[in-house]
Amino acid sequence: MRQKMSDMVHRIQDEICFALKEIDGVDFRQDEWTREEGGGGRSRVFSGGKVFEKAGVNVSVVHGTLSPQAAKSMGGGHELKGTDLDFFATGISLVLHPLNPMAPTVHANYRYFERGEGQKPGSWWFGGGADLTPSYLFEEDAVHFHQVHKDVCVRHKVADYEKFKNWCDDYFFIKHREERRGLGGIFFDDINGASRDECFDFVTDCAESFLESYLPILNRRKDLQYSDQQKEWQQIRRGRYVEFNLVYDRGTTFGLTTNGRIESILMSLPLTSRWEYCHEVESGSEEDRLVQLLRNPINWVEK
Amino acid sequence: MRQKMSDMVHRIQDEICFALKEIDGVDFRQDEWTREEGGGGRSRVFSGGKVFEKAGVNVSVVHGTLSPQAAKSMGGGHELKGTDLDFFATGISLVLHPLNPMAPTVHANYRYFERGEGQKPGSWWFGGGADLTPSYLFEEDAVHFHQVHKDVCVRHKVADYEKFKNWCDDYFFIKHREERRGLGGIFFDDINGASRDECFDFVTDCAESFLESYLPILNRRKDLQYSDQQKEWQQIRRGRYVEFNLVYDRGTTFGLTTNGRIESILMSLPLTSRWEYCHEVESGSEEDRLVQLLRNPINWVEK
Repeated sequence: MRQKMSDMVHRIQDEICFALKEIDGVDFRQDEWTREEGGGGRSRVFSGGKVFEKAGVNVSVVHGTLSPQAAKSMGGGHELKGTDLDFFATGISLVLHPLNPMAPTVHANYRYFERGEGQKPGSWWFGGGADLTPSYLFEEDAVHFHQVHKDVCVRHKVADYEKFKNWCDDYFFIKHREERRGLGGIFFDDINGASRDECFDFVTDCAESFLESYLPILNRRKDLQYSDQQKEWQQIRRGRYVEFNLVYDRGTTFGLTTNGRIESILMSLPLTSRWEYCHEVESGSEEDRLVQLLRNPINWVEK
Repeated sequence: MRQKMSDMVHRIQDEICFALKEIDGVDFRQDEWTREEGGGGRSRVFSGGKVFEKAGVNVSVVHGTLSPQAAKSMGGGHELKGTDLDFFATGISLVLHPLNPMAPTVHANYRYFERGEGQKPGSWWFGGGADLTPSYLFEEDAVHFHQVHKDVCVRHKVADYEKFKNWCDDYFFIKHREERRGLGGIFFDDINGASRDECFDFVTDCAESFLESYLPILNRRKDLQYSDQQKEWQQIRRGRYVEFNLVYDRGTTFGLTTNGRIESILMSLPLTSRWEYCHEVESGSEEDRLVQLLRNPINWVEK
């Protein structure tokens, strides 16, 4: 499974990057890196193109021994301790920040994790998800993104769209703002309720559906006109993105405490962001409409 | 002491804001706020003026019961638990981010803390410090800033400049970047080694010396010419400022977990910041000269 998952994420990275290159008009920068404690990764980042302010698609295959701190932030319902701290992890992680404030930021991440030899019950699991973070609300975009992910879930008995949708809303909660980072999608961790192959098939289907979930949205929004005020609002929302990632995100915490490659971990941060003191949205405005949904998530597709 | 310290920080807030208003050419926005669990504060923020991109000077007087999480992040060498989690805290906190990349960001914070009734040994302490965060190095600025703070320390037997200077270098360390946030200054916590009045006199002297430590530097740099590239470097350094504050700063963590006023806590964040993937400074450049000092702090004044 280690090899199978690693092959899959590399193949998906190629597919996604090829599609993004077509749209953005520039090639990505690639960095292959190794980690002193074991393993490494391949980071690809777009910048300076027509469509993306900054976009990164990263795969990694790492192994080593977890620090107690990393074991804690790892989560997944497992309290790791003692001699069973050896781990293996491989996954794909991407964050795309478009230039146009009408085009949403998107994030997806699919990963496989083993501790010890990965043979004992509960010693392996899959995790991942995908979520959409617009600055302006287009309902049809949210519906499309959720529908594609629901369709994937329906095809696999290990998956439960409703549960994963709620999990996503809970996970991407910026507690001190009392709002979510975006309009959600799916999120799951600790998937090991079926055979390893069944779980792998689900995660593969998710990863293969990424372009279908996002490209139609991007194509509809990337060339829309916008004002300076709208760009500023996007920058404020990107500030919130930074707040979530640095304060709450487990992947970021895990990376910062396991001596990961910092530039790959913080690749998720936007190129630029903004913090205005006491910024308030006008009641009834487009900005307000979005914020209401970040505070009170709704169902975008039928359960 | 509760009243005395609270009066002092309000007086200093007035003095500093009056001086900043003269320089910036605009008035501050003031917000008085109260905290549901007890107490409140007075926040003053400058924006849209000639000199500061964003500048905040905040005082607060709060009391309540610490959550176990807040008690932990509070630090100060005290493990707080059980029924002794009642607290009182008052202080002044300021962060000034100038527009001009040649003018350094500055931060200062002086606070008094009591737990329980504040009568038992070790149940009260003072903390604080001030540190300078330039994007470009002017040695005379760093020397001046450190000299003023050293002179204050020399006047008080509770203070030890060398110890507080090293404490500052240690505290403002961005571990995942292996560099400090800035060129330091002084930092101290848990000051209670002498009488309460002696500690108060030291902290008051620090707060009263703030303008002397910073204004000459600001006046020398605020109107210097700069290029777009230099502004961009400032924005990248401000990204690092955000990383420190959101990932490591105890004051921020404390605020986010004690239901503090979010806009006052995050007032320390710059208006705008930037994260470039794999940004590297040119060897031997001005940017490189600064980074070397962030990696390997030096003594700016004689010990």
